[in-house]
Amino acid sequence: MEKEFVVGIDVGGQTSKIGVVDARGTVIAQTVIRSDTYGSDADAFIDALAAAVKGCIKEAGKEGEIRGVGVGAPNGNYYTGEVAFAPNLAWAAKQAVKFSDKLTKKLDGIPVSLTNDANAAAVGEMTYGVARGMKNFIMITLGTGVGSGIVVDGKVVYGHDGFAGELGHTNVVRHNGRACGCGRNGCLEAYCSAMGVARTAREWLEHSKEPSLLREVENITSKDVYEAAKEGDKVALDIFEYTGTLLGTAFSDFIAFSAPEAIVLFGGLARSKEFLYEPMMKAMNGNVLQIWKDKVKIVFSSLKESDAAILGASALAWEL
Amino acid sequence: MEKEFVVGIDVGGQTSKIGVVDARGTVIAQTVIRSDTYGSDADAFIDALAAAVKGCIKEAGKEGEIRGVGVGAPNGNYYTGEVAFAPNLAWAAKQAVKFSDKLTKKLDGIPVSLTNDANAAAVGEMTYGVARGMKNFIMITLGTGVGSGIVVDGKVVYGHDGFAGELGHTNVVRHNGRACGCGRNGCLEAYCSAMGVARTAREWLEHSKEPSLLREVENITSKDVYEAAKEGDKVALDIFEYTGTLLGTAFSDFIAFSAPEAIVLFGGLARSKEFLYEPMMKAMNGNVLQIWKDKVKIVFSSLKESDAAILGASALAWEL
Repeated sequence: MEKEFVVGIDVGGQTSKIGVVDARGTVIAQTVIRSDTYGSDADAFIDALAAAVKGCIKEAGKEGEIRGVGVGAPNGNYYTGEVAFAPNLAWAAKQAVKFSDKLTKKLDGIPVSLTNDANAAAVGEMTYGVARGMKNFIMITLGTGVGSGIVVDGKVVYGHDGFAGELGHTNVVRHNGRACGCGRNGCLEAYCSAMGVARTAREWLEHSKEPSLLREVENITSKDVYEAAKEGDKVALDIFEYTGTLLGTAFSDFIAFSAPEAIVLFGGLARSKEFLYEPMMKAMNGNVLQIWKDKVKIVFSSLKESDAAILGASALAWEL
Repeated sequence: MEKEFVVGIDVGGQTSKIGVVDARGTVIAQTVIRSDTYGSDADAFIDALAAAVKGCIKEAGKEGEIRGVGVGAPNGNYYTGEVAFAPNLAWAAKQAVKFSDKLTKKLDGIPVSLTNDANAAAVGEMTYGVARGMKNFIMITLGTGVGSGIVVDGKVVYGHDGFAGELGHTNVVRHNGRACGCGRNGCLEAYCSAMGVARTAREWLEHSKEPSLLREVENITSKDVYEAAKEGDKVALDIFEYTGTLLGTAFSDFIAFSAPEAIVLFGGLARSKEFLYEPMMKAMNGNVLQIWKDKVKIVFSSLKESDAAILGASALAWEL
């Protein structure tokens, strides 16, 4: 019998989402497990994941009909099938885990294809989302961190070692840049992730006396900044202006690299579109080389966030 | 009869080099014409170029045996066959010239393939040079300006519009950066080209009183700085240290994009290898994301400079 279904898995720091997907991109069954309750025990996590995958396939009634499993995970390597030194995954923070091999074994031989979460998102947008028909675009995921997936001529760029597309760790502030989780300073991720926005808020409030709704919030998150901006809070609006400007400036250099048709944004922080779009466009077009001025689009993912990561990962599995 | 020969043309600001090349990459006849004596008259230049190409083919005794012509030119566009708004070419500085179409017509229908000079150099290195066998590398040409050709998975990255790979115009100095010929500030090219090195020398000499052999030179060029460095001149050595550090820092961000196996350097300034290599490596490995530390090579072109550009351009023609 032809195997007509695939499984997509989005491995995140806190939870992992699993879905069974048909050839049209419909998620016909899905489930979620926690990723953060296994400490450094990779095998325990993969056991739990395999059990959840089997349960999901059973629920969908598609046992024996799964062609393959596609996985998006932080630091997931397409070539080696390893998840290696991923700061946000306790079970892979200090080691290289042979993820694909282990999962295949637990799934009685169903083949597994792995890449990082941002590459999976790029494949998802190209297959089912706003990047349909685009052959050259750059996916930027604005979540807890900043990830990227670069598509050139219709294919994800993996590079020599499978780790290409770490644009969240390109430099945006050269002098006295903020410390980044990667151990260096001034990275895009340290400023333009959800964590970066919250950090900007805390720094600015500390160094000014400007009144702000945010002064009443404990443990400010990027969502708090968004809510305050919606209320017209000047500090919150300025934070988005600053964040959008840094993003747009960074994009102008990314464009010089691969001359994309569009930058595609996805992730929690991308929901602040109404405050980010204008400063991003202004900074991008103000800093880009003349030939690209007013030529490159910035578009936002239209996929339901809960589906997008699963769909992206699942799209990988069709190539197996 | 099978057509077994190609022509490679390297169009530069001052001269254009033409060569007839066989399938093994031997340049069997070559000639040079000036590029800078036609003002803004593109047709006059292309007429002269076509006449020189015909003469070169005749000299090689290969009339009727030419499969195609490959051309590398600043701002040459692979998709459109145009040379457009190239600051260093008077005849294309303010207009888009339908270069490939015009040249084909003048050559009685021999097909012409065009790309920018750095992409041509990348193809040359991949076909005949130090990048043989590499599928992922970044070519950086350190000449009057700084050009780049990016190879991903064995193919040159052209991007959505054919202009990908303008890494000479990514930002290296964000605040009070030098004005660049492109109209912006702080570009890699404004610091790390032959012109940039000469500019650094002039600026530094003006703003310090340190003794230097360079103080005796009128109209300092990068070659003068090289000669002085060879004599152990402290200022000259510091200039290369500074230039190499900026290059290496820029490379660390380029690596985050496409995860290349190597950065390949070519061009006049690359001859200062003995002074550039160490600061470049130090800055690159000091700034790159952990996963790439001490992993990416910096290699220098081994092709004879006079042949390399012709060979690179000619390699394009085999695909015609």
